[in-house]
Amino acid sequence: MTDSTALIETLGNAARSAAIELAQASPEAKRTALIAAADALAASHEAVLAANARDMQFGRDKGLADSMLDRLRLDESRLKGIEDGLRAVAQQPDPVGEVVAEWDRPSGLHIQRVRTPIGVIGVIYESRPNVTADAGALALKSGNAVILRGGSESLHSSQAIHACMVEGLRQADLPEAAIQLVPTRDRAAVSAMLQAQGLIDVIIPRGGKGLVGLVQQQARVPVFAHLEGICHIYVDAKADPEKARRVVLNAKTRRTGICGAAECLLIDRSYFDAHGPDLVQALLAAGVEVRAEGDLARIPGTVAAQPDDFGQEFLDMIMAAKLVDGVDGAIAHIRRYGSQHTESILTEDEATARRFFAGLDSAILMHNASTQFADGGEFGMGAEIGIATGKMHARGPVGAEQLTSFKYLVKGDGTVRA
Amino acid sequence: MTDSTALIETLGNAARSAAIELAQASPEAKRTALIAAADALAASHEAVLAANARDMQFGRDKGLADSMLDRLRLDESRLKGIEDGLRAVAQQPDPVGEVVAEWDRPSGLHIQRVRTPIGVIGVIYESRPNVTADAGALALKSGNAVILRGGSESLHSSQAIHACMVEGLRQADLPEAAIQLVPTRDRAAVSAMLQAQGLIDVIIPRGGKGLVGLVQQQARVPVFAHLEGICHIYVDAKADPEKARRVVLNAKTRRTGICGAAECLLIDRSYFDAHGPDLVQALLAAGVEVRAEGDLARIPGTVAAQPDDFGQEFLDMIMAAKLVDGVDGAIAHIRRYGSQHTESILTEDEATARRFFAGLDSAILMHNASTQFADGGEFGMGAEIGIATGKMHARGPVGAEQLTSFKYLVKGDGTVRA
Repeated sequence: MTDSTALIETLGNAARSAAIELAQASPEAKRTALIAAADALAASHEAVLAANARDMQFGRDKGLADSMLDRLRLDESRLKGIEDGLRAVAQQPDPVGEVVAEWDRPSGLHIQRVRTPIGVIGVIYESRPNVTADAGALALKSGNAVILRGGSESLHSSQAIHACMVEGLRQADLPEAAIQLVPTRDRAAVSAMLQAQGLIDVIIPRGGKGLVGLVQQQARVPVFAHLEGICHIYVDAKADPEKARRVVLNAKTRRTGICGAAECLLIDRSYFDAHGPDLVQALLAAGVEVRAEGDLARIPGTVAAQPDDFGQEFLDMIMAAKLVDGVDGAIAHIRRYGSQHTESILTEDEATARRFFAGLDSAILMHNASTQFADGGEFGMGAEIGIATGKMHARGPVGAEQLTSFKYLVKGDGTVRA
Repeated sequence: MTDSTALIETLGNAARSAAIELAQASPEAKRTALIAAADALAASHEAVLAANARDMQFGRDKGLADSMLDRLRLDESRLKGIEDGLRAVAQQPDPVGEVVAEWDRPSGLHIQRVRTPIGVIGVIYESRPNVTADAGALALKSGNAVILRGGSESLHSSQAIHACMVEGLRQADLPEAAIQLVPTRDRAAVSAMLQAQGLIDVIIPRGGKGLVGLVQQQARVPVFAHLEGICHIYVDAKADPEKARRVVLNAKTRRTGICGAAECLLIDRSYFDAHGPDLVQALLAAGVEVRAEGDLARIPGTVAAQPDDFGQEFLDMIMAAKLVDGVDGAIAHIRRYGSQHTESILTEDEATARRFFAGLDSAILMHNASTQFADGGEFGMGAEIGIATGKMHARGPVGAEQLTSFKYLVKGDGTVRA
């Protein structure tokens, strides 16, 4: 047994015990813990920012890219945002025990389907210290124990935030092992988590290509994949040019670093014949690097697309662009290059939109709307732990409710089966 | 690449193509295929029974136990049952495309959550030829392609039934690769299925301890575990003795070979003090071998329980029995030895029943009812592929609806995110 396996076994056993207690914790106790954690964070800005300064120094020494450093960085306003998030989750309805459905049977049985926590959740994420609070809060709300493994550059920041979460648990008399943070930068701990059968019930991996590969090779524990968001936006022949311009710009440029940002623009050939280079020019004018293929590459200012520009998550002011033949061409391209996250069609033709909705199987399909709406808050779910790109159990935005399973409660009166 | 890996890759690629077509197949086409399959089976009794005779001979030569030979055996009445099952699934509502929920958002978006097939399902099962039809039918109804791998002793029977399923697909102009049967007895094919990432979306393993171990070691594909049913029945101090006798007998003896059969009787010590050996005597009188512990072992006719009698799935006229201290003692025992399938409490005290329901996390918890009701038909779901014992995605009885995932369809009108 390696050190990492032993470490995860220790954390896992503590989490399992905590999970049994947590599954029966009152909604009030969980709410109290979350509010107390927010209060503790409010009183700890100095300590958290000092920890973050150490992480930032470590990140700079390591030569992290600016976009990574920006994700790692905390300031007063971001800390306030984390606190607000904790208080918002505290006020959400408690999903545990909710009766999702109930019915009677001719046998005389009354059957209820009731939400129950999953058990122990493992979250593997990048160096975004806020996830420590967000994921911890959603796990607690849904009655699950959680083992958090943040990116190595964010270790001190995550530890400082984690200390506030534990303080909240303590004040609500909930087990401290309900929210645990893996206290090491050793990457072997990630492998140990992926293989911790019987200790961790589900792993939520949030990350890019590197983590995808690791999960595919090593995961023995069920996974809610929260992986790449290679989102497409398709402008149909019957699109309204003004709506198209507005939505395409928003989908690409509102925020480029989120998983719902559009990465590839598909334009129907007859739209292009009728309206010319308007959309590509609007992107260029907004400062987007457009990596264009075929006729689109002749528009001045574009860059010629390389094959691997399609199916790539840029998370930057870069967009691949291509002409396709109608909605079927768009569907074929997305099936080949997409990541089953979010795709949008722009068209005034209902039948074409229906075809797009039927022919694709991404978690989220949109019609005349920006892909940037792929977000638990925008869906009305409150906070989210991320957007699941797999098809099992949870799909799309994952909030507290999506972190539950269910059980059937059946009532009879000495009822036997014939 | 081994032969088995290559075989599963071939089947898997064909299934993936079929799955895309199937996801968009009309409810009418799927219904037609199922009825045509039932008709084909009705016209093929002679061929199927001849194939089954070969399998039975093979099974006898191999020295299979009588209970296994009984599961393998087909006759006119069982074939009629399989046919009726196909027609019943044909008449069920089609789950694909069902709008599970819909709501509006302040942003102006309208969001629908719509059922969609999972994709390609792999089913690994024992030598029960009827599962070939049941699992094939439920997969088709839910728009999934399926790869079936039945027990090696049932190969000819399964092939004969599979031929009828394919005939049904053909008559409905659906792709024949929608329902495929692994055409080999080589056990390496099971391993290849468990590792077929990207080809198979979910594996449904139905079997006992051997398959559990294999799945835990090898599975890379998500799993809906349909594994052991180590069902407990707990008789509380406040149980009605007459209801208790009736339910305990039914739970154990109605059919011993199904996963919902009770395997362990837990009796509260004060119930035993008040009512004596009545329940154990009733089991003995019905011909059950009672493997009893402690004071219960002094009842004439019982056998002394060995430690591994607890947590064992007998699937036979055998029951472990033990005294416990109240509902908390029962909960502790079941948490340690159960398989999260189905447990029942007998009590007239509502608060105690609530404690049992809250303290346990099995897929199905019953109050004053026989564990033998753990069945999709009895739950009102129509046919079932089995009872899932895991907590991910599907739990309890798994019918066509439980074999679906969902996607979000979002409508705007040029809507952008602020």
